[in-house]
Parts: sequence; structure tokens; C-alpha cells
Amino acid sequence: MFQNSFENVRKNCPLIHNITNYVTVNDCANILLACGGSPIMSDDKDEVAEITTICSGLNINIGTLNKRTIESMLIAGKKANELGHPVVLDPVGAGASKLRTETAMQLLNEVNFAVIRGNISEIKTMASGSGTTKGVDADVADKVTEDNLDDVVAFAKAFAKKTGAVIAITGAIDIVADSEKAYCIRNGHPMMSSITGTGCQLSAMTAAFVTANPDQPLEAAAAAVCAMGYAGEVAHSRLSDMDGNSTYRNNIIDAIYNMTPEMLEKGAKYEVR
Amino acid sequence: MFQNSFENVRKNCPLIHNITNYVTVNDCANILLACGGSPIMSDDKDEVAEITTICSGLNINIGTLNKRTIESMLIAGKKANELGHPVVLDPVGAGASKLRTETAMQLLNEVNFAVIRGNISEIKTMASGSGTTKGVDADVADKVTEDNLDDVVAFAKAFAKKTGAVIAITGAIDIVADSEKAYCIRNGHPMMSSITGTGCQLSAMTAAFVTANPDQPLEAAAAAVCAMGYAGEVAHSRLSDMDGNSTYRNNIIDAIYNMTPEMLEKGAKYEVR
Amino acid sequence: MFQNSFENVRKNCPLIHNITNYVTVNDCANILLACGGSPIMSDDKDEVAEITTICSGLNINIGTLNKRTIESMLIAGKKANELGHPVVLDPVGAGASKLRTETAMQLLNEVNFAVIRGNISEIKTMASGSGTTKGVDADVADKVTEDNLDDVVAFAKAFAKKTGAVIAITGAIDIVADSEKAYCIRNGHPMMSSITGTGCQLSAMTAAFVTANPDQPLEAAAAAVCAMGYAGEVAHSRLSDMDGNSTYRNNIIDAIYNMTPEMLEKGAKYEVR
Repeated sequence: MFQNSFENVRKNCPLIHNITNYVTVNDCANILLACGGSPIMSDDKDEVAEITTICSGLNINIGTLNKRTIESMLIAGKKANELGHPVVLDPVGAGASKLRTETAMQLLNEVNFAVIRGNISEIKTMASGSGTTKGVDADVADKVTEDNLDDVVAFAKAFAKKTGAVIAITGAIDIVADSEKAYCIRNGHPMMSSITGTGCQLSAMTAAFVTANPDQPLEAAAAAVCAMGYAGEVAHSRLSDMDGNSTYRNNIIDAIYNMTPEMLEKGAKYEVR
Repeated sequence: MFQNSFENVRKNCPLIHNITNYVTVNDCANILLACGGSPIMSDDKDEVAEITTICSGLNINIGTLNKRTIESMLIAGKKANELGHPVVLDPVGAGASKLRTETAMQLLNEVNFAVIRGNISEIKTMASGSGTTKGVDADVADKVTEDNLDDVVAFAKAFAKKTGAVIAITGAIDIVADSEKAYCIRNGHPMMSSITGTGCQLSAMTAAFVTANPDQPLEAAAAAVCAMGYAGEVAHSRLSDMDGNSTYRNNIIDAIYNMTPEMLEKGAKYEVR
Repeated sequence: MFQNSFENVRKNCPLIHNITNYVTVNDCANILLACGGSPIMSDDKDEVAEITTICSGLNINIGTLNKRTIESMLIAGKKANELGHPVVLDPVGAGASKLRTETAMQLLNEVNFAVIRGNISEIKTMASGSGTTKGVDADVADKVTEDNLDDVVAFAKAFAKKTGAVIAITGAIDIVADSEKAYCIRNGHPMMSSITGTGCQLSAMTAAFVTANPDQPLEAAAAAVCAMGYAGEVAHSRLSDMDGNSTYRNNIIDAIYNMTPEMLEKGAKYEVR
């Protein structure tokens, strides 16, 4: 099934409009190309509606947000909704500042999202409307473990029901849920947290997957999450002794580039709850 | 001849002022260093005239443009003209939005460019003052082929005559033309379209080449285009089975770094029309 | 002693707030992760005080500054001072434009810095309040050599005394000084100047080192400078014939990732003057 989702990305080559942070933007563009999509970045309020119109999907990432780009996110998000384009939200650092939390909440109120992808602290912040986040990483207290997994699944389903979005909570165990069904995904490698932007890259790639599979946002989002995690595993297996996080970053994008839909199908590790 | 153009870059180490997008800016800086130039990035309207003054050439790239940086592009472009510094324009996404098309046209009206480098859709948009572009990639309908090559060459020469700029149209076949003479270049590799920013990097490098060869802008621009394409070939030959577009990106910059003027002379594949 | 400084970074995992340029920001984030710190980037004036509050240290880098971010730098710098967080200043291109020089001077007047790190031309500009810088590189006339080393050491100590900051002047020979004591460091490799952002990366890493070693800012800054230079040596030793500056960039970050405190202790080359 994930095979099919990925095949549709490679076949349709979805053009994705990204309003994203300047830290990881280059990696987001290259991973979109690696998976078979095509990126365009644009954040001026006078052009975002037009750019969104020529694209098929939109990825909004609030890292390094500012007043100018927040306005553009809202314009683009509403336009994409109007056109029926899937919109992904990555609420980077929601909970870390009032501006981030409020921006995430305003986006949630004014735009319909196909997928919201974040770490557990960011998603909890959005579900409650307030929260504390240790920078852009999840709080240790929030960590998803085998012990609290059922609770987190229930939480994700409830938030999916409330928002109408697929909720993707990523970490050591990933949960991708709509209101009825949750994929618990165990792909990935701990070293992924030693590079900046694996989350941002995943959000961009998720936008390509849900855009290429408009009728199956849950499966498409889960496929993207598995693909990223599996790429993290493949990338790690290629590291030699003196390689570090920079080589690892390159290897992950390379692994997506070389991943076939069949490989994803075989490499995906998940259960449904 | 291209050997000489490249030798002048390595010898003069031209300092290039870049007003460019935040997606590919790091790669632009590193490829400028790789070819023998030196980069500085600056986009605040209160300093761009001064920064341009201490540089020898200017590269204006309209990707991720916004109102603030457009103003800076105009100020810097006029100042560079005043000082007699070569200015390169990369009209990223011209045709994809009214803002991009109008900005490209305004720049064309108010600044004299030594070189305008874009894909065929972007250049057609500029020549006609309007157009449609599929994001930041060329429209399939516009594609340069052996069949329409003579027509595109005639178009490029006419646009060069009208603007006074060398016109560099890059794609599977590259055309670099002034009003009289066109280089049709067949270096490059299809995989170059699988990474973001080869066009932006080429524009930055072209600025270094024309700045180091002020009396031969056509040859210098053609040399830069050949160098980029040849680097794409060398970079591809180094890829192993599990390498993908991220490694390819690194390999291209590395190939420019290790390319000697003699290698460029030997590796360049072009004809004059 | 440098071993201990580095151990504290790996142990404390300091969260560093970076207000930095969009050219090298990704490398700054990845090298912070490589050394054991954690990065967050944020530059909107409405959130920088809060973001600084949840962090333990602040890194201000004026490359690609603009009116909006300058205001944020001042707000964040003052807040960090209030909280007793170490603040590092990287005055990229001070002397290259009035805006950069004035911004560097305003920051110096309104914020107390734990460390100011720049090339000799940037630091001279700050010490005198005016200057000329060739872009973002040091002027040849300013170059630190064995002949003028004692003079530069005296200058660095005097500027450290005046500002209360540790002064780190980096180049072929690095000088890290407070008012009493200077480390003259001979780690590094000439090829480091062939990639963009080694200075920016070092400033980010210095912020992590001084934050993790609040009582020993001089030793911590010197340790960071040695670590960067030693990484440049290790990274160079790994290059094969066809590798160039892009691979070198990756290798440097990888070398920091794989460097142990013991390796730093052994690899550090310095004398005290």
C-alpha cells in the first residue's frame, strides 16, 4: 500500500509550494526532488496566492517565522483551501514562544490542514492551545514510549477528529492518525536527531505524498513517515568510521533518491492501532 | 579561449556581491569560492550600494524575492551600472507570478545587464513581458531541441540585441548569445535537474567569469556555462550506486573546485551558430 | 584543560539561540549539533526575548543583517545580559559598510559580550569604530604573521580590557585573549578559506563552549577555536584527489561530530603569551 503511495509521487511529480524557514530550506528542496516532487519556495504576500495556484500542494513551516511571512502563510493557506490543494503544517517550536504558539493556533483556525506534523510537544501545544517546548525539540516529559503509546494514539485520534487533519507525531516511535486509525511506525535511527531539519524535510515530503494521493491522506502521510525513517536507517548503514552528521544528512537525501516504492514497502515497519 | 576566461577568474579572484534567494545561497557562495571568486551576500537597502562599491561584480537573483529585497536589487543594480561593474540577472520563476514577471521587467528597464541567465520559459517571459512558467522549471512546451535550435538561437540573438545583454538560456542544450554570435553548448547531465540551485549557482559563477573578463562577456558567460555543465558530467562519473542527488550536489561544487582551465578547454562541447 | 571544556559541552548540551545570516545558517545548526549543543534560530522581535529566555546562550552574527533583524539582535542581546547568558558576537563584514560598522558598534555599546569573534579586519574596525574590510575576508594589510604577533596580542588584550569580552581573532594564526592572557593557536588548514562559513560556524560553536563553561570564557573560547582548526586538519587529511571544498565542508562538521575531548586535548596546538 505504501508502495502505491510512493509510486504516485514518482508518477505525478507534484509541484509543492513551500513557505518555510531559512535554516533547512535547501534540504527541503532537495528531498522533495529526491522523492520525485518538485519544490518552489515563495513567501511574499503579493505572490503567494498565485504561486500556490500553479502548485498542487502547500507546505507551511513556521520555523524562523516573522510578521511578514505569517501573513503570507495565511493568504497561501486560504487560497490552497479554496483550490482544494492539500496543505501540510509543521508547527516548528510551537510552545517555545507566544508568537509561535499563537501563529500555529491562528493557522489552525483559519486554514484546513490535510496533515499536521510535529514532535509530541508541538502537537500537544496545538491541542491545548498552550505549552512549553525545549526549543525545537520535544520535552523529555512528553516522550512517546511503549508504555504511553496507547494514550498518545488516543490523543492523536482525538486531535485528528477535532481538526479534520491527519496528525503525524514523530519521534522514536511515530504515530500517524486520523480520527479512526493510527499507524505506529518504528522506522528511523537515533542519529536522525543529530542533524537539523529531518522534521522539516519530512513535512515537505509529506506534502508531496498527500498531494500525489489526494484520496488517501492517512496512508500517504504514513508512507512519507516510513520513507523518512527508512532512509535514516539506510543512511546510517552507509556511514564509515570518520563520517559524522554532515555525511549522514547527505546520505538521508541520497537514500530517498535511491529508494524504490518496492523498497519502501519492504522496509516499512509499522502496526495499526 | 575558455581556458583563458577561467584563468582570469582564478587570477583575479573577483569579489561578487550577491542579492539572491535563501534556498540556494550557501551553494552559490561555495561555488563562487570553488571557481576562484569570492562571495559577499547583502540585501539591506541601506548597505547594498556600499557593498556593491567594494565588489567588482553583482549577481541579482529574484528567487524568494520580497518587497524589501526588490528595492535593494534596484539600488545595487543602478550603483553597479554607475561604477561600470558587470551585473548578472537570474530571473528565477519569471512568468510564475505577476510579482516575479514585473520585477524582472522593472530590473530590465532600470538596470543594464551584462548577462541574463535563465531557462527558456523565464527568458521568453522576459522577452514578451508576460508568460507562464511551471514553477521554477521550464515549460515542456518551451523545450529547446535540435529541431527548434536555430529558432531559439535567433530569438536569443534578437533579445540580446534588444537588451544589450548576453543571453544565456540553459537546459538540455544551452544557448549563450550576443546579438551576433551564439554558443550552443552540449555539456551537462540530466541529473542536474534533480538538485536545487544548479541554475542559481551558474548565475553566481557567471558573474565571476564576466567580472574577471570585462572585455569578453560572451566568451566568459559561455565558459561559465560550459564549466557548470562539464562539472555536472564529472560529478556524475564519480557517483557510486547508493549516491543520490545530495552527493551529486557536493560533487558538482567539488568538480568546479578541481577543474583547471585546461580541463575546461578540453571538456567544453560547443559549436558556434 | 580544553578536554574539560569540551566535555562540559557534551555533558550540558547547551541550547543556543542564534540570530544569524541566511548564508551559513544550516552549517551553524549542524555544527552546534555536532559539538554536542542544540540550536534554535529565531529573529522576529516579538519572540526573540522569549526564545533567548528558554536558551542558555546567544550567538549574534551580523551577516545579511537588515533593519528588522538588527532590532531583534538588540532585544535578544539585552535580554540575555539580564539573564546572565553568555552572548557571542560575530561582526561579519564590519568595516565593509556603514550599516555593518554602526550595527557592530551599537551592539558593542548596548550589549555585554562574553566573546567577540572575527577576522583581524573586523576586530580592528570595532576597536577603532571605523575601518575597511575586503568584503567578508580580512585585508591583506591586516594579516597576522609571526612578525606582528606580539603587537596583535597586545591589541587583542587591550580591546578585551576595554570591552570586557574575550577577543577571538581568527586567521592563519588565531589569537584568543582576555585582558591578561592570550592563546596563540596554530591549528587549522589554509583550505578552510575555500568554504563559506567556517567563521560563522566557529562563532556558533564558541557560544556552545562558553555557555557550557560559564566560569572560564577564555579557555572555553580557545578550546572552540582549537576544535575548529583541528577539525579543519582532520577534514583535510580525509580528502581524496577529486574531493573539493564541498566535501571539505562536510568533513569539517563530521570531524567535530567524531572529535572526542581527548582528541582535542592532544590535537590542540597553542602557546600562551
